[in-house]
Amino acid sequence: MKRIAVLTSGGDAPGMNAAIRSVARIGFSRGVEVIGVYEGYKGLIKKEFKKLLPRDVSGLLEEGGTFLLSSRAEEFKDDSIQEITIKNMKEEGIEGLVVIGGNGSQSGSLSLFNKGFPVVGVASTIDNDLWGTDYTIGFDTAVNTAIEAIDKIRDTATSHSRTFIVEVMGRNRGFIALEAGLASGADIVLVPERRFDIEKIVENIQRGLEKKKKHHMIVTAEGAIRAQDLQTRIKEKLPELDVKYSVLGYIQRGGAPTRFDRIIATMFGAEAVDLLIQGNPGFVVGIKDNRIVHIPFEDAVKKFKEINYKLYDIIEEVSV
Amino acid sequence: MKRIAVLTSGGDAPGMNAAIRSVARIGFSRGVEVIGVYEGYKGLIKKEFKKLLPRDVSGLLEEGGTFLLSSRAEEFKDDSIQEITIKNMKEEGIEGLVVIGGNGSQSGSLSLFNKGFPVVGVASTIDNDLWGTDYTIGFDTAVNTAIEAIDKIRDTATSHSRTFIVEVMGRNRGFIALEAGLASGADIVLVPERRFDIEKIVENIQRGLEKKKKHHMIVTAEGAIRAQDLQTRIKEKLPELDVKYSVLGYIQRGGAPTRFDRIIATMFGAEAVDLLIQGNPGFVVGIKDNRIVHIPFEDAVKKFKEINYKLYDIIEEVSV
Amino acid sequence: MKRIAVLTSGGDAPGMNAAIRSVARIGFSRGVEVIGVYEGYKGLIKKEFKKLLPRDVSGLLEEGGTFLLSSRAEEFKDDSIQEITIKNMKEEGIEGLVVIGGNGSQSGSLSLFNKGFPVVGVASTIDNDLWGTDYTIGFDTAVNTAIEAIDKIRDTATSHSRTFIVEVMGRNRGFIALEAGLASGADIVLVPERRFDIEKIVENIQRGLEKKKKHHMIVTAEGAIRAQDLQTRIKEKLPELDVKYSVLGYIQRGGAPTRFDRIIATMFGAEAVDLLIQGNPGFVVGIKDNRIVHIPFEDAVKKFKEINYKLYDIIEEVSV
Amino acid sequence: MKRIAVLTSGGDAPGMNAAIRSVARIGFSRGVEVIGVYEGYKGLIKKEFKKLLPRDVSGLLEEGGTFLLSSRAEEFKDDSIQEITIKNMKEEGIEGLVVIGGNGSQSGSLSLFNKGFPVVGVASTIDNDLWGTDYTIGFDTAVNTAIEAIDKIRDTATSHSRTFIVEVMGRNRGFIALEAGLASGADIVLVPERRFDIEKIVENIQRGLEKKKKHHMIVTAEGAIRAQDLQTRIKEKLPELDVKYSVLGYIQRGGAPTRFDRIIATMFGAEAVDLLIQGNPGFVVGIKDNRIVHIPFEDAVKKFKEINYKLYDIIEEVSV
Repeated sequence: MKRIAVLTSGGDAPGMNAAIRSVARIGFSRGVEVIGVYEGYKGLIKKEFKKLLPRDVSGLLEEGGTFLLSSRAEEFKDDSIQEITIKNMKEEGIEGLVVIGGNGSQSGSLSLFNKGFPVVGVASTIDNDLWGTDYTIGFDTAVNTAIEAIDKIRDTATSHSRTFIVEVMGRNRGFIALEAGLASGADIVLVPERRFDIEKIVENIQRGLEKKKKHHMIVTAEGAIRAQDLQTRIKEKLPELDVKYSVLGYIQRGGAPTRFDRIIATMFGAEAVDLLIQGNPGFVVGIKDNRIVHIPFEDAVKKFKEINYKLYDIIEEVSV
Repeated sequence: MKRIAVLTSGGDAPGMNAAIRSVARIGFSRGVEVIGVYEGYKGLIKKEFKKLLPRDVSGLLEEGGTFLLSSRAEEFKDDSIQEITIKNMKEEGIEGLVVIGGNGSQSGSLSLFNKGFPVVGVASTIDNDLWGTDYTIGFDTAVNTAIEAIDKIRDTATSHSRTFIVEVMGRNRGFIALEAGLASGADIVLVPERRFDIEKIVENIQRGLEKKKKHHMIVTAEGAIRAQDLQTRIKEKLPELDVKYSVLGYIQRGGAPTRFDRIIATMFGAEAVDLLIQGNPGFVVGIKDNRIVHIPFEDAVKKFKEINYKLYDIIEEVSV
Repeated sequence: MKRIAVLTSGGDAPGMNAAIRSVARIGFSRGVEVIGVYEGYKGLIKKEFKKLLPRDVSGLLEEGGTFLLSSRAEEFKDDSIQEITIKNMKEEGIEGLVVIGGNGSQSGSLSLFNKGFPVVGVASTIDNDLWGTDYTIGFDTAVNTAIEAIDKIRDTATSHSRTFIVEVMGRNRGFIALEAGLASGADIVLVPERRFDIEKIVENIQRGLEKKKKHHMIVTAEGAIRAQDLQTRIKEKLPELDVKYSVLGYIQRGGAPTRFDRIIATMFGAEAVDLLIQGNPGFVVGIKDNRIVHIPFEDAVKKFKEINYKLYDIIEEVSV
Repeated sequence: MKRIAVLTSGGDAPGMNAAIRSVARIGFSRGVEVIGVYEGYKGLIKKEFKKLLPRDVSGLLEEGGTFLLSSRAEEFKDDSIQEITIKNMKEEGIEGLVVIGGNGSQSGSLSLFNKGFPVVGVASTIDNDLWGTDYTIGFDTAVNTAIEAIDKIRDTATSHSRTFIVEVMGRNRGFIALEAGLASGADIVLVPERRFDIEKIVENIQRGLEKKKKHHMIVTAEGAIRAQDLQTRIKEKLPELDVKYSVLGYIQRGGAPTRFDRIIATMFGAEAVDLLIQGNPGFVVGIKDNRIVHIPFEDAVKKFKEINYKLYDIIEEVSV
């Protein structure tokens, strides 16, 4: 293999740059040329290619976002468009592709792979909802950003003896809410995977008030219930209660990646290049039980990854 | 003077704890007892007093929020309630009061002072909207928190070539928006003090798009226009544009105070105690032209502090 | 079991407070009283006990250090002293003990356990050098602190085209150096577990200079070679080279714990209490292959934990 | 004026990039070309020039260090070398120069200005030791970095009931030590401007120990006494005391600039360009009493800026 390409796709995540750097550097050290593709699958369609030089990936480890840019390309679902991208790559002598992204992006990888093009995926999304890997690149940073924000909000919640609702990212899944809630000492955590009972929440708050608890903290995934709606529902039951909310939003996507994300990004990127070179494509690279693993595209994309309900239980137990 | 009291009132601000610590420590070193009042004016009414010991204010410099708690006490506007609080203080041998807070809180100070009780104010609010002082305790930290958040948001804005609207605090005033916008390189900043023209904003964005600018960043004070509403108005004109928004919210109130806030909190607190001891009450302590100043309560509360329009101009000039 | 005690021992680590909180809260929720012991084993000897209340452990998740204080108690190695501590605990009705700490501290646990007292350990040290667990509480935070510092140092290294040596903690082991080096993009990492060749280091730098590399970054564990000595040795070979060094020191021990450390601290603390209650003492609680594990004291203390040489190799491969 | 140049010189400081960006952007908006000079005065000698484009200065506000690189050029003190640099600039059509740096760098500015070349300086050094300006670009960030580090060190100091010495930058001046000490609640601060008495330090510590103070924190500028030497001298008097030290070192030079540094960098850069365009060179741009000021080169370089002794007094008063 003489030349491979790398792209980032879907929602950006901290550590994507570190993964690109690793793909490029390991490529160089294996004697393989590495082509950067701009704006994800869009760049494959429009042939927005750039040969990466050592200088291009210098200083990238600590940078949030992705310097190759990212996008969600609806048109890429079209069969004939996929054919065009394979033709585009072949014309440039590209013999393999590394796709850094989450669920949706790896569906694209699967399509190209099924058409015979060698693709390897790198598991990267702040949502951590990819089957077969314990962690995806970006999740650790996103949760750390969330807990730093919640630590700040707690200062004001305590100063005013307030009930506070913090909405974190997670349209369909509760991984961020669960870990951010546990790590920030939330009293109640709501995730899309579990129905919640407004009565129980209200009881929980009332019990705290009776014990002279200074403030209550609720963390909710946007997909469980929006913070504003939860505020309304709590106020219906407890009209006297001082309830405020905050939506963390896009800050969870940015920032310098953490130790964990920088290291798995570097390991995943290296492994992806080696899989391509060894003629062993068709997998997403992830980490399972503290070991680098290869997840078949089909599994990664179609299987459902459970949240860790043990964390859920412990939140209730440590909340007093 | 043998015994003074200190309270924090209104919206909490980073550095309030540092100011309490300074009041207490300078009090101790002058041989004066210092009583902490809980929950602002509410604590004066309900006599929630606690004699502060050196140990109570240890480790407070770096803590966000206020360990004395804060509140907005509507009932305190009542004349007879004010009389009660003066009686309460006199009963406990309290001869002077330090009120740490912003505009509304210093109106309370003025009322007590007008009734003959010695009060000194300490200028503290993240909004920085107190006349007579260049800075209030908490503003520097709040803006630094905002720009760190905007730096993170820029990562994702750049990665997706998006237009981003960030809403910062400021219901009536644009101090935070102005400095956060300038310091984070926003292309456009909206403040309540100046009407904005949606056409000009749209033109500005279009001009950038023509120049292949990767992303646009707009910072708006909540009192100028809510981020969500601005998104709607921009989308009406530019339906194809990828516009997202984020509301920073309560994170701006919390966190460890910065150098600047810790130092002015310490200086203000010390000066407030000395003014009381010297029999010179009736002022809010602030900083003007890099010097500690005494602002008569009446001025602090009633005069209007202009934003710095020079900053506004420079934002337009450095935006390309 | 009606009453248990908890102490922190040895070098303090971020997340120790989170572990104490978890022990206390899980104790409360199981109906067990929890006694805090001050200053580690010293407090056991001097009977410095305090019954913990919910309020005592509130707000602890985000606090660095250990509010129970820690110490290294040489006298505790004495057999008769150990007997006294057991007597002291029995007199207070304490039926089990949780020891939060690293290698040396768990040797103490083993001694008490061998004398028949029910003890469970919680793996906590920034050094991560405890056999049987992939991670110890505090390591993730320490490495994140180190890489944030190195990111800052890189700013000045790049601006002045310098070679920079950063010394991180690790008197005997290289876990911090290895992960901090990989995560911060160091060109060269030195650990106590591997002899280094000054000629190879000099060659590496010269090769970089020839390629017009702007700066070089070397991360060394204090136990491999002190930064100052390495500076001297490099200057002997390359007298013209601008080489500076920085010793990160104690900042690596402090700060708010990360997501990872807060979560494992909470999980470890909960598991430790349950082991005691179930009458199953004699283990250190750790995490292996992403699962909570019980490590027999003897193994934890006496077996040698290898560093991950795969990380070492990848550092060389991604360094260009 | 059609074309100006900008360079950064001497020790790098956070906010230098923001100042370069401002010079470039204001230049563009005034219709002036801006040439970046690499490596300070060295680049003037070797003609390492690059015409700056809008894209080159995009994203610079939040970056530490200086992308134009910096150096200390001894050879520039030579008269004939200075003539060459003026010739070099004239050959390229450069009609004015902005020098971003501290004391030593502005001496270079003065030399060129005295030879008739239009130069304007921008006050930038973390040391804050430039006469005529209350603040220099980089100082606020450096002190904030120092206090964050000291906050971390306090965690471990408290956990082990230790006396801690923290050495901050300042070979000749104590500005950083003074503000970092006050803002981090140090008990004792040592600056080069004031002789210290080891007996008084020891007494201070002993008094604290008698009052059961948990830990002591001493902040020293490297030019007052090195931390290690102070440790030795304290141990001579108090051999039983647990005294540790930490040298903060180069982390104080790096990192994303704060609000304050970003804003003054932007204001200073803009003002510098306008002074050149208006034909009014010969000054360093600074800030005094919260207003932008023009300091004659001679004054900036030769006059001695006093530290604020009032801060020194207050440190003693709030230390208990």
